[in-house]
Amino acid sequence: MAKQKPGIPQGTRDFSPEILQKRDYIFDTIKSVFRKFGFQAIETPAMEDLSTLLGKYGEEGDKLLFKILNSGNFLKDVSDTELMNRDSNKLSVSLSNKGLRYDLTVPFARYVVQHQNEITFPFKRFQIQPVWRADRPQKGRYREFFQCDADIIGSRSMLNELEIIQMIEEIFTKLNIRVSIRINNRKILAGIAEICGYPEKMIDLSIAIDKLDKIGFDKVSDELIQKGFEYKAIENIKPILEFSGSSTDKLNMLKKILSNSEIGQKGIAEMSEIFEYTEQFDFQNELKIDLSLARGLNYYTGAIFEVTALDTPMGSICGGGRYDDLTGVFGMPDLSGVGISFGADRIFDVMEQLNIFPTTNQQSVRLLFINFGKNEEKYCLPILAEIRKMGFNAEIYPENDKMKKQMSYADKRNIEFVALAGENEIAQNKITLKNMKTGEQSTIDIPQLIDFLKK
Amino acid sequence: MAKQKPGIPQGTRDFSPEILQKRDYIFDTIKSVFRKFGFQAIETPAMEDLSTLLGKYGEEGDKLLFKILNSGNFLKDVSDTELMNRDSNKLSVSLSNKGLRYDLTVPFARYVVQHQNEITFPFKRFQIQPVWRADRPQKGRYREFFQCDADIIGSRSMLNELEIIQMIEEIFTKLNIRVSIRINNRKILAGIAEICGYPEKMIDLSIAIDKLDKIGFDKVSDELIQKGFEYKAIENIKPILEFSGSSTDKLNMLKKILSNSEIGQKGIAEMSEIFEYTEQFDFQNELKIDLSLARGLNYYTGAIFEVTALDTPMGSICGGGRYDDLTGVFGMPDLSGVGISFGADRIFDVMEQLNIFPTTNQQSVRLLFINFGKNEEKYCLPILAEIRKMGFNAEIYPENDKMKKQMSYADKRNIEFVALAGENEIAQNKITLKNMKTGEQSTIDIPQLIDFLKK
Repeated sequence: MAKQKPGIPQGTRDFSPEILQKRDYIFDTIKSVFRKFGFQAIETPAMEDLSTLLGKYGEEGDKLLFKILNSGNFLKDVSDTELMNRDSNKLSVSLSNKGLRYDLTVPFARYVVQHQNEITFPFKRFQIQPVWRADRPQKGRYREFFQCDADIIGSRSMLNELEIIQMIEEIFTKLNIRVSIRINNRKILAGIAEICGYPEKMIDLSIAIDKLDKIGFDKVSDELIQKGFEYKAIENIKPILEFSGSSTDKLNMLKKILSNSEIGQKGIAEMSEIFEYTEQFDFQNELKIDLSLARGLNYYTGAIFEVTALDTPMGSICGGGRYDDLTGVFGMPDLSGVGISFGADRIFDVMEQLNIFPTTNQQSVRLLFINFGKNEEKYCLPILAEIRKMGFNAEIYPENDKMKKQMSYADKRNIEFVALAGENEIAQNKITLKNMKTGEQSTIDIPQLIDFLKK
Repeated sequence: MAKQKPGIPQGTRDFSPEILQKRDYIFDTIKSVFRKFGFQAIETPAMEDLSTLLGKYGEEGDKLLFKILNSGNFLKDVSDTELMNRDSNKLSVSLSNKGLRYDLTVPFARYVVQHQNEITFPFKRFQIQPVWRADRPQKGRYREFFQCDADIIGSRSMLNELEIIQMIEEIFTKLNIRVSIRINNRKILAGIAEICGYPEKMIDLSIAIDKLDKIGFDKVSDELIQKGFEYKAIENIKPILEFSGSSTDKLNMLKKILSNSEIGQKGIAEMSEIFEYTEQFDFQNELKIDLSLARGLNYYTGAIFEVTALDTPMGSICGGGRYDDLTGVFGMPDLSGVGISFGADRIFDVMEQLNIFPTTNQQSVRLLFINFGKNEEKYCLPILAEIRKMGFNAEIYPENDKMKKQMSYADKRNIEFVALAGENEIAQNKITLKNMKTGEQSTIDIPQLIDFLKK
């Protein structure tokens, strides 16, 4: 076989030990909070039937699906005419009936419908798995990345919204990231669309104002005009979006402005209920109504959330909301739920930028035995076994290499202590322990060594 | 959108909470032992360049790779002639340049070569990730399944073989599975091929005798004759394979028989060294030389291992061995290593059959607050927050549903305790705690509740 220069596909990553430990610290923190709130983990296959995925993410999304070539003679059902037409889009559906998961929401909806008879509702599930998108790779955007989702499905109570907010609060507090939690409600946006005279254009309105932060009001206005909004209607929206004041002020303002919109009033009532719940608690992070928050996804129908880090600019690091009909497309209508998704990559980047990953690490190796040869090995191996039995991560350097090389190994691996046992130590039934950070070293017996590690 | 009957691709699985908890119990046990021995986790992308994967698993393996259709106009570099030839194998390489990971060994070799300048050797890595194979799905064989691999690369010391055996011992002891660990050495097999007069046919010999358990000596003999072995040579192999006795007896027998084979003597020396190491320890599980053990994979060059469960028939649940040139194909020759792979699905099946999964579960919810309505929620929510703050998994039923429905939820979710707080409890600042298993119930105050959960 010819030698190859090894590489990996564009937009994908290898996770080396150090990076993986940090990523797992984020995952473990998120998981422990999800579990504390009673959410249970599920996993779904990397591959889904293309029929499950297609049409769920818009035309653009369909193009960004990674499709898997059918096995065996994948051309057998394709006619010559089809082949010669060379229409990649059409042909891909003939050549492929499976695709890689594009997000965790659609597989979750599919899962709920498929397993509805085994599931106890309300169903609180979380899912932390990679997803794949054939996006143009760029800094911070990958073709393989992890999503961390939690959803409660089968309950309309606003108590669920409270718990979502509490989880956000606890997770970011544990990760030591100060955040702003912004909240809005799609029904309020629908109310605004209604009083402008465009009740049917709520989605267009949402998609446009979702960009307010990035492109400013004038460009949002241009987009709305393109979508058929009249200039006067847009002028009416502006003061609502720009209204400043406390959450109570905003709710009072909305009550007046949306007094003729039934759906708007519903949204205000939901929002008020959530704030009644949250007022019972002291949040460390800011929680505020942001009427310009819309979130791009079509399936939200109630509360929507978005979280941004305060101490470094990164965009949204977490978001979610309530949906009333996620499972309808798979044949199970009217199942309401609310979900939240944590952006692990962006959270990782925030923590790197702020340098707030904990320095101590439960996964690291505490002790390395230096290898001085066969006799010394024989002396060290039972001690090593004893230390591992106590639950400590420890190892012996496998070769009788030069001392310098072995010490450099310990150093590069960030090993805390090194144990040396030569003729003298063996004669006294002791070892010499060296602290790799301070350089301190002392000759101690084995019970002392174990006591030492326990501290 | 039309309603769809949801399903998943053939040979793939959804992992529901109960199954996933059990699977994670296996993974967590394996991981904790890997870490204790100083192995560090890495992860590689699900997709690899096809050039990395093709040709590494034999012709059959190439066919079983899941290939990913190129994005965009995947036909642009394919000529009309190529299309009309309808050769699926050839065409697949034009339509696809990425494939899903088929195992963890080849991506690991690719990783080591690609990151050689960042890695501290000897490199002890583990990796637990799914792999995909377009095999015909059947009971116990999936198209998506997990592998759990640990390898030490960059050291020729037999101390590494000892540590592999110690990890096998500890993992299966922790999982409560009694096993037999069988060991052989490819150099001994090479010696046997040599003294039979077929030094060049070691791989053929290995592949044939690897099937001894399954098909018996006569069929192995047939296969060897087909591969060009003479009948007389095969007759010479039989007594070696069928020799019974202790490991020392076997090594003595081999020393005599293979006295003229340099490579055979090397294999015996390696094996003897491993047994010198293991004799220092009391193993709970049987460790024996099995001269009929060959393992199918071509890259092994020294010690090989295989582990079978004693109390239920399942075939091999763990296996591995030493290789001298895994990374050569990617341009980094002569890097010796030794690895082990745990078959998570089979281990899962063994544990289910023997019913030895632990019944207590750290992930489960300890306490559910029954929801009696708005006022009662208001009373319960701060208590719930307090309990979670103590680190316990707990929840409140989100809707004021009928008592029966809420109790049935607690029951189905296997929640240990239920807390009830109605008018009376609230007036006394207490809650009524019900043990879901015994049915016992008592009215206690909040500090008592917390003390109770701590036990």
